[in-house]
Amino acid sequence: MTEKITLSWLNEPLAIPNLEMYRLAQARQAQLTKPPGSLGQLEEIAIKLAALQNTSQPCVERVHIAIFAGDHGVAMEGVSAFPQSVTSEMIRNFARGGGAINVLARALGASLEIINLGTVHDTQSLTGVQHYHLGPGTENFTHVPAMTWDQLNRALNVGFEVIERAQQNNKQLFIGGEMGIGNTTSASALACVLLNERPTLLTGSGTGLDSDGIARKINVISEALSLHSPLVDSPLDALRRIGGFEIAALTGAYIRGAQSGFPILIDGFICTVAALTAEHISPGCKNWFFYSHQSAESGHARILNALDAKPLIALNMRLGEGSGAAIAYNLLNLACKLHNEMATFSEAQVSQKNLSSKP
Amino acid sequence: MTEKITLSWLNEPLAIPNLEMYRLAQARQAQLTKPPGSLGQLEEIAIKLAALQNTSQPCVERVHIAIFAGDHGVAMEGVSAFPQSVTSEMIRNFARGGGAINVLARALGASLEIINLGTVHDTQSLTGVQHYHLGPGTENFTHVPAMTWDQLNRALNVGFEVIERAQQNNKQLFIGGEMGIGNTTSASALACVLLNERPTLLTGSGTGLDSDGIARKINVISEALSLHSPLVDSPLDALRRIGGFEIAALTGAYIRGAQSGFPILIDGFICTVAALTAEHISPGCKNWFFYSHQSAESGHARILNALDAKPLIALNMRLGEGSGAAIAYNLLNLACKLHNEMATFSEAQVSQKNLSSKP
Repeated sequence: MTEKITLSWLNEPLAIPNLEMYRLAQARQAQLTKPPGSLGQLEEIAIKLAALQNTSQPCVERVHIAIFAGDHGVAMEGVSAFPQSVTSEMIRNFARGGGAINVLARALGASLEIINLGTVHDTQSLTGVQHYHLGPGTENFTHVPAMTWDQLNRALNVGFEVIERAQQNNKQLFIGGEMGIGNTTSASALACVLLNERPTLLTGSGTGLDSDGIARKINVISEALSLHSPLVDSPLDALRRIGGFEIAALTGAYIRGAQSGFPILIDGFICTVAALTAEHISPGCKNWFFYSHQSAESGHARILNALDAKPLIALNMRLGEGSGAAIAYNLLNLACKLHNEMATFSEAQVSQKNLSSKP
Repeated sequence: MTEKITLSWLNEPLAIPNLEMYRLAQARQAQLTKPPGSLGQLEEIAIKLAALQNTSQPCVERVHIAIFAGDHGVAMEGVSAFPQSVTSEMIRNFARGGGAINVLARALGASLEIINLGTVHDTQSLTGVQHYHLGPGTENFTHVPAMTWDQLNRALNVGFEVIERAQQNNKQLFIGGEMGIGNTTSASALACVLLNERPTLLTGSGTGLDSDGIARKINVISEALSLHSPLVDSPLDALRRIGGFEIAALTGAYIRGAQSGFPILIDGFICTVAALTAEHISPGCKNWFFYSHQSAESGHARILNALDAKPLIALNMRLGEGSGAAIAYNLLNLACKLHNEMATFSEAQVSQKNLSSKP
């Protein structure tokens, strides 16, 4: 049994957005040839990105996507509409370029990493997949903690490394995605612990459970909370006890992104729970986050709300893989282009708003 | 004074979406490697586009944008936060590439036409702008009809011609935009007539009126309704009496698009009113429409609702120019790519959903 060790990098300070750039970007938006405020949330995006990227010309053209995959012991409780083999099968699908996130990464010109942290079925033979072998999935957290401290630390470190590589490759935005049959059960349970909420409020149909399935899933989560809640002594411990390999890797990536000043676009339900976990472990992380979409998963709105998150789109998506973030990505990209490329009133010699609009 | 003449093409039948392609596209979505329904509205978009484009491989890569500009006599009633000269100044800004829609068209690789139907200030010297000279703006519809029948017909024809050209150039999607100081007043008034609603419900701040300005705008619209409502004998007559050159051109384009089987992405408040007008003139037009966004303009939701419209995004935008549609465009493009390029369960050898999700 490994000891509880806190990774040294987890304690590093978070980067601080540049408020001077924030103000300069605000001033520029007011000078662009449009009614003030008329680009709505796109203005807020450009202004925030200017502060995060420490520049008057924010840019997110070079985007990196990483999919973290892992299996979940809790899947044996019958909490998913799909068999557990689908985790590995989908990793193979990603490796061959057939998944939704592959199509989107190609369309966006984004780099894409596929990372298997540990699955029941072997995917070792696949080219283009990084393997970490943390175990054949997590343990079933209705009985024991999902991970050892060693597994948790190694998963967090995978996220750390992804961000380090993305920065070395001069990427300007990070999108994390996930794949893991059973992982909405893990994410819902984790959110319940962090927000001290009842499972009924944060549990949904995942990949497509019927009402009986959802009731069973809620029971499974309730059982897990009875076992672990009295013992959880920190957000990290909550992540270890009822999280998943991929959720921990996402959490590590989000924290490291915030430490190194790297803007992050959060995907749907599971990624939002990882973002919540990151914020609980390292308060202030969320300054570096954009939230892509409100998913169809029940409970997502409540978790977004706990992060004061304003998601960009709401298209009833519930696929995961980072797909919602990849779909929303263009909004950030176009917000930057508008900010940088539109003419100002004085450049274009366009009259400004009347001080009084009276005739 | 010109006679009331109905343009012959206005009576041509609408194109009919291919239901067989609709069903084939539905069947393909169910076979793609994702939980059924998990791409939400993106699935609906791809399926609808398959039916509209009469193909199993819908594609909207080649998009055409046209901005229709015109001045409004009603602007002299002090209904805009900006001076009337801004219509011409913004046309110059578009001609030089400095407007929001220029930035977006470049980013999207879309072709862009700038069309001046008639403004108070001359823009004849600008290269890259098409001029139609319908008049130095419409008449002030608080006193007289905004247009003659001849002006209305010429404006509708401009829309017709834009669609004909776009189709000859093998474009796959049309976005219309507008510029015209005072045109939210015209659009609100027109929507009030078509929907038989009170001005208070459909009038907003436009480019940024304060509450006094909005109250004045509502009074102006009420005055216009008192004058014209008893006399309006058709949706076309409503468009002539209280519409604008650019609103009529948009309406003509939308109707012609529906006649020739050309999918259309509707922009914000003013374009939605033009879409409503098209639907009232030629019921069934709306089968060919996608609605890009819910704008910040008060009353937009109600008008969208009258069209059973489900807008794709809601980012609090209120700029016009077609900018909201250009921002939302990528959602359609990515929906097609996902539909065409994702692997199926059998291609990827991925297990499908359990018939029973019980353990």
